[in-house]
This record gives sequence, C-alpha cells and structure tokens, in this order.
Amino acid sequence: MTTETLASHVAAQPEAQESLYQQVALRISELIEHGTLQPGERVPSVRKLSEQEDVSIATVMQAYRVLENKGLIETRPQSGYYVRPRVWRPPAEPARSEPSLRATRVSTTDLVRRFMQAARDPSLVGLGAALPSPTLLPTLHLSRAMAAVGRRSPQLANTYDVAPGNYQLRVQIARRGMDAGCMLAPDDVIITCGCQEALYLSLRAVAQPGDTIAIESPTYFGVLQIIESLGLKACEIPTYPRHGVCLDELNERLDCCRIQACLFLLNYSNPLGSCMPDEKKARLVALLAKRQIPLIEDDIYGELAFAADRPKTAKAFDRAGHVLLCSSFCKTLAPGYRVGFVAPGRFRDQVEHLKYVTSIGTATLPQLAVADFLANGGFDHHVRKLRRVFAEQVERVTHAISRYFPEGTRVTRPSGGYVLWVELPAHIDSVDLFERALDEKISIAPGPIFSPKQGFRNFIRLSCGNQWSETIERALFRLGQIIAKLG
Amino acid sequence: MTTETLASHVAAQPEAQESLYQQVALRISELIEHGTLQPGERVPSVRKLSEQEDVSIATVMQAYRVLENKGLIETRPQSGYYVRPRVWRPPAEPARSEPSLRATRVSTTDLVRRFMQAARDPSLVGLGAALPSPTLLPTLHLSRAMAAVGRRSPQLANTYDVAPGNYQLRVQIARRGMDAGCMLAPDDVIITCGCQEALYLSLRAVAQPGDTIAIESPTYFGVLQIIESLGLKACEIPTYPRHGVCLDELNERLDCCRIQACLFLLNYSNPLGSCMPDEKKARLVALLAKRQIPLIEDDIYGELAFAADRPKTAKAFDRAGHVLLCSSFCKTLAPGYRVGFVAPGRFRDQVEHLKYVTSIGTATLPQLAVADFLANGGFDHHVRKLRRVFAEQVERVTHAISRYFPEGTRVTRPSGGYVLWVELPAHIDSVDLFERALDEKISIAPGPIFSPKQGFRNFIRLSCGNQWSETIERALFRLGQIIAKLG
Repeated sequence: MTTETLASHVAAQPEAQESLYQQVALRISELIEHGTLQPGERVPSVRKLSEQEDVSIATVMQAYRVLENKGLIETRPQSGYYVRPRVWRPPAEPARSEPSLRATRVSTTDLVRRFMQAARDPSLVGLGAALPSPTLLPTLHLSRAMAAVGRRSPQLANTYDVAPGNYQLRVQIARRGMDAGCMLAPDDVIITCGCQEALYLSLRAVAQPGDTIAIESPTYFGVLQIIESLGLKACEIPTYPRHGVCLDELNERLDCCRIQACLFLLNYSNPLGSCMPDEKKARLVALLAKRQIPLIEDDIYGELAFAADRPKTAKAFDRAGHVLLCSSFCKTLAPGYRVGFVAPGRFRDQVEHLKYVTSIGTATLPQLAVADFLANGGFDHHVRKLRRVFAEQVERVTHAISRYFPEGTRVTRPSGGYVLWVELPAHIDSVDLFERALDEKISIAPGPIFSPKQGFRNFIRLSCGNQWSETIERALFRLGQIIAKLG
Repeated sequence: MTTETLASHVAAQPEAQESLYQQVALRISELIEHGTLQPGERVPSVRKLSEQEDVSIATVMQAYRVLENKGLIETRPQSGYYVRPRVWRPPAEPARSEPSLRATRVSTTDLVRRFMQAARDPSLVGLGAALPSPTLLPTLHLSRAMAAVGRRSPQLANTYDVAPGNYQLRVQIARRGMDAGCMLAPDDVIITCGCQEALYLSLRAVAQPGDTIAIESPTYFGVLQIIESLGLKACEIPTYPRHGVCLDELNERLDCCRIQACLFLLNYSNPLGSCMPDEKKARLVALLAKRQIPLIEDDIYGELAFAADRPKTAKAFDRAGHVLLCSSFCKTLAPGYRVGFVAPGRFRDQVEHLKYVTSIGTATLPQLAVADFLANGGFDHHVRKLRRVFAEQVERVTHAISRYFPEGTRVTRPSGGYVLWVELPAHIDSVDLFERALDEKISIAPGPIFSPKQGFRNFIRLSCGNQWSETIERALFRLGQIIAKLG
C-alpha cells in the first residue's frame, strides 16, 4: 500500500467512486491478513480513518459494516471496532493450475455420469451436487406465483413464448443487470432453458466444429461436455484460486493457439470459487476486444457474493458486443424451473435463431413466475439470506476440513458461491475416494471430471449448498478417515 | 376390390384383425366415393353386410358408426343407413409432389421469420400458425393441476428433473403409446422441451454435418431450419397428398443418394395433411431396417385423427430400434408448457446424453401437470372433442375455399390434423399473396417456406386451428378476392 490517500487515488479514477467503501474495507482487511493489525487489537476509529483517508464518516461506517459481516472485526459497546480473535488458521490454498500448453480434444468419461447419478441420490449425504438445498429456496412462493398467473391469464400461460422469450421477464433481467454493472435493454436478452442451454447456444453461435475454445483450468464439467459434443477443442488457461484466469498466460495462448472464443466463469467459478477482480475483468475484456475474440461469460454464481455487493460482470466493460453473458435462476431460486438467459451482444440474432431452431421457446409459466418474483421485491431479500447462509456453510466446511483432513490438504478460500476445491496429498486418487465415499453413503465430486483429460487426480470439489448439520460434519469426519487410510 | 370376403383376407393377416371394422368402413366409403353408392341411397343393411363379408354384426355396427362420424352416412329411424346427400363437391386434390432428384443444402430465408411474426400477431385473423386455438385447450385444468402439485410437493417441483425426465410422465407416455401400436417401457422415453427439441436431438444423434437426410416434399419449415443449422443436406422425396411418401421413389433415392436418415411426419403431415396407411408404414420400416437407416418419426399430429381411432406409428412396426419416435403435447394440450418426448430406440443413450448436454432437463412442474392430466382420465375425452372440432373446421374451410377461391384451386383432403395445403393457379405468387393478406390483417403460410429451395410458389397452407367464425369466413372470402386480382 502506498501513502497516497484512497480519496486522491479514486479522484483519478472516477468510475471507482461508487465502491470507495469497498476499497477502504479491502485496505483494512489486508492489514488484518498481513498481521499489521493483530486479533484483539483495536482498528482505527471511524473519525481517524475518515481523516486519514480523506473519506466521509459514512464511507468508513459502511466499510466497517462490510468487515463485520465478513467476521473480520467486531464492535465492543462504548469502545469501538476490534479485530476478531482468530481461533483457527484456514488451510493453505492450492497453487495456480498448470495445464498443458496445447489445445486438446475433450474426452469426458463415464465418471461424469456416475458422479451425476450419485449427486442426485437423495439417500446420500450430498457434498457432490453444486445445488442449493431446496429448503433454502422460496419454492412455495414461486408455486403460488405460478398458480396465480395460471388463474389470472390462463391463455397467456398456455401460449408459445417463442424466442427471445417473455418480455416482462426480460425487463426484470435487464433491470437486475444494473447491479452487475450492465446496461441492458430487454431486447438484448434471450430466455433459455437454464444456463446450460445459454452456454450451448452461445458456443454454437461463435464456433464451428474443430475450433478451439479457451477455458479455465479446472472448469465445470458441463462446459467440457458441450465442447466435446460440438466437436470443439479446449485450451486450458492457468487459473489462480482467488482471482481466476492468469491474463499473461491467456495472452500467450492467444498468440500461439488460434483461439476462437473464451468461456470463463469469472465470479465464483466452479470448482475453484475464484473471483476475478473487476479491474482485471476490464483488462480481460479490452484484451479480447483488441483481437475480436468473443467471451462467453458464465455468471451463474455472480449473485452469491459473501460481501454486501455483488461483483461486476465482464459484460459491464463490454463496449463492442463481444461478451455473451449467460446465467440462470437455478442456483438462487428454482433449479426445477429451467429458466436461464443470455445477453449475446453482437451475436444476438444468431443466438435467437438457434434458440428457435433448438426448442422454439422456453416453457411460459415458469418464466412468468420468475418474472413475478423478481418484480415484487422478494428477490433481494432472499439473496441476502442465501449469501449469509452460504458464507457460513463455506466457513464451517473449511473448518471441518482443517480438523479432519490430513496434514498437507489445501482448500480454496472463495468469497462467494458454495463450492470448495480441495487439494489432497499428492498420492490420493480422488476417483478411488469417490467410490469409497459412495460405499459410506457420501457423494463428492472427483477432480478428474473438471478437466478435458482427467487431470486433478488428487483434487475433490465439496459442495456447501446443504445446510450445516451433524450429518454433514460426520460425513466430513468419515471422509478424513478414508483419506487417511488411502495414505 | 376383389370378391374375397374381408374376413378371409384378414384371416391371412392376423395382425390386421383388430382393425376389421375400419376395413369394412373403408370399403363402404370407397363405394360412396366411386359413386357405386349414390347420395340418398340406402347402404347394405347391417345383417346383409355381416353375412356378405363374413364379419360380426358388432363389427358392421362399429364400421357404420365410423362412417356416420365422418358424415358419409346417416341413420333414418326405422329404416336403416343412407348415404348422406352431398351438397357440394370438394375441390380436386393437388398431385404428387415432384421435387429435384438431388440432395441439396437447405437455405431457409427471412420469409420464415416474417411468417412467424405474423403467425404470432393476435391482431391478425390467424390462418397462418398451425396451433390449436387456446379456447380449445384445457388450460385452466392444467393450471390447477400444476398449482396442486406445487402445493403438494413443493421440493419435488423445484428440483432438477435431469434427462431422461420425470418418471410418472414417462409411464403415461408409454401407456398412451399402446394406442399407437407401440410397446414402450418408461425407460424407452426421454422428455424434451417440445417436439422441436426431440427432432433436433434425434438428428444430432444419427447424423454428422454434411450427411443427407431424406424428407417429405413439402415439409415442415422447422425441420428445414434444423437441417440447415446442423450443416446437413436434404433429399426431398415425392409425396402423395393422401398417403404420404412414395416408397418406390424413396427406394430409388436410397440407391443413389447415400441417405443417412429419414425424417418423416407420417400421420397428418405438415403441410400436406397426408396419412400413410399402416401397412405402408410397415413396408417403410422394413425397407429402412434392411438398409439399417434410422427413421425419425414426427408424430405430433397423430392423436388428431378424424376417425374414432388414431393411426399407428411407424414405431409400432420397429423391431430393430431404428425408429426414433418424436412427439409432444403442444398440438393437443399445452403449447406453452414445452413438454415433448422422444422414444429413440437404439439411439437412446446418445439422445439422453445430448439432452443433458443441451439443457440438462426439461422444466419439472409442466411435466408433472401433463402427467397428472394424462393419468386422471381427462385426455381421451378432450382429444375426442378436439377431433370433432377440427374435422368440422377443416370441412368448413374447404367449403369456403370451394366457394371463394378461383377455378382451378386444388385442396388436400386430410383425415386428421388441422392444416390444408392449397394449390392456387400456376401464375399466383404466394409470397405476394402473403404480403397482401397481411395488409388486410390476415395471416397465411406461403408455400416456399416448406421446401429447401423455396419451391411451391403457388401454394399456401391454411390452418384450421381456430374455431370457425364469421371473421374467418370473411377472411377466406377476402383471400379469394386478392387471389382473383393477382390473376
């Protein structure tokens, strides 16, 4: 950190103004992380920091509330803010991934199918599927909205909602886009059958069989399956567990690999949980725009920030229409409704045509129910609750790992979403672990399903989508024992 | 007709036994059509025909009921059955289509998009879209079923229904398959997002870019769009307006064209309304099985027979799993629900995987609502009503055409579905007619959208999906005037 005040720094970059309090919070959290401020110590008073950084009292207050929500500081009545005592030290994080330099054909295996079967089996302790527990979702509210729409406008409800999809829903999606920094019109949005169809149509719109797509290493297996199914090749980019894709490495690959498009999950990626800082997103978009390379951005976890505000999307920095923003309501509201969307930028007409050709339109009533829920104000409140729950669950599972898993285990430290990427000691075979865990009625996701050639053999992904319980704690304890035996 | 009795004929072909009464009905209807039995004349008494054809009294009674439903004969109390007076003579039918002999790349045009926009415009008199009027559909009943399921099993309703889709719905579909002559297990069925996705996934499962698909001439434009989008070629097969694809011509094309698969709409095709007789379907299936060529069968109109029983599907004759049967509930129950299915035979695993990759699954609640409606007995009753309504509407529109359209107009005489394929005098340009009709607030479907290279310029398709009204009659009158002016 330099000695310039934040205010002078921000004055030079007007667009950063809005997140001033976040920068203050970041600065203090770094002081805590680096040990400048020790557990139990008092942090600078609000007045003092306000003078020191030349920002308003309100800004500092907001920053301290963020740090409080994150569990980094606490108030003591009549006394001020203190660094919270740290009762445990989180495990180390995995290193940057180092995939092969060359583009490869993707070959997913039967392991994915076996994983999915296990992930859907309700008799197992579910640490496998990256889905929110149904008990956390406003299902009854949505069902009621759907029933009301069905009664109120029966004929509307039973009419084709041909691509681009329901107008009211597209209005709501465009409005919510503002939170992610996007200026979208309803006509920029095309409704899809979940985020998977959004990604599928986007890839079909920008690439032909044989083309190479840059992806994160590791990456979501559903993306690998689309790439394989469309006869595309994958070029894996090294990825940091906190901040995502390494732009220098991406640049080198772009020089040598004839990459047709990138498909990245920038906000709380799956399985890494990495979140690319907004200014790095801006650089990524500029880098790709210069080369006219489309970016398919999967933002399905973007709403699930542990902080008060969600991060921006790359789409927010897209001036030329090169970014195809894909998302859905499957991780926040309703997996069973299959309502997703894509804002395809300059590929709009192609994607709309492909949507029509593939399935004509998305089911009407689920669209109307989601539009109703978004319009009538329940969504923000609901998402705030989800964020708190997931932040807590991620912390508890991390805790349990540090207690029950062997020395040398590394775990990501995501700032949103609900998956943890766990690096086990080098000799552990996670497919073996997956099978043995199944015998004990526990589902996990083995690392090899997240890469084109079944790498990451000593990694697993653990989902924290289910509410913390003794059952989950016992399952983690048991996993630790199995791993120790495999050692 | 030979002098052998039907019973002796049937005895030699045991599988035809079940449809004995239909054969009796067919024989009498041919006698009427050929003028052997004139309007107002008495048809043979039930007892006499029963002796003559060596069939039971009940069989003859059933046959006469079929003919009565078709409006061909009527009962006179205490007197017997009479040929109904024919007050008008339907226009001649179009001849067999004669498409190019060679496989071609498909290039659909912007005309399809303009047609679809017009077809969806509620301010126009709708003779364009091949959709049932929403007023004919059990929409409120379905909405209530959906609301009830949502209340009863909220968590089920909001859970992914990953491919192959909801089990209860697959059970219902397998059961109804029996009416179409199919012996399906629930696991043979995969739920899709409407019939369009079923066709799309089936084509992806059986063909690679560059392959040639045999299609009917003319054929549904949605099929042409999929073929174009997947980089396939089309080989059009000459088609009879009553009985569908000409098998001799198909055989010749198979010899010379390296056809990878066939995609046919055998029951009440779109736009022809042709229905391939069941024994011809058996020959078609045998022909293709010998060459190991898959048949994608689009049966979306199969339930909408004007007769009491629906025709069989080609799938009914499929022993080797070469037939991929595709259909949906969009034409009978709920266009807006996007619930369709495919029974892909030996391509089951490929189609299930492609469904997962494309969109993971179909929305859950609409599947549950349709399953509920099928299980609780409303479907048969509802479909019987639809059949009566559509038969009447098709007859009325045909009447109006014979009154208002110029001499030389030819019209198909479908025995199910609700579209008419109209051949106008050779010099009429149907795209011109389409535009002029739009000016008069009437939507129709111009012939060129039904062929890979915009043939059928003097043809139009008229939908009879909307209930007959003065508005529709006026629109047909107006269309006749425009055509006359174009002459």
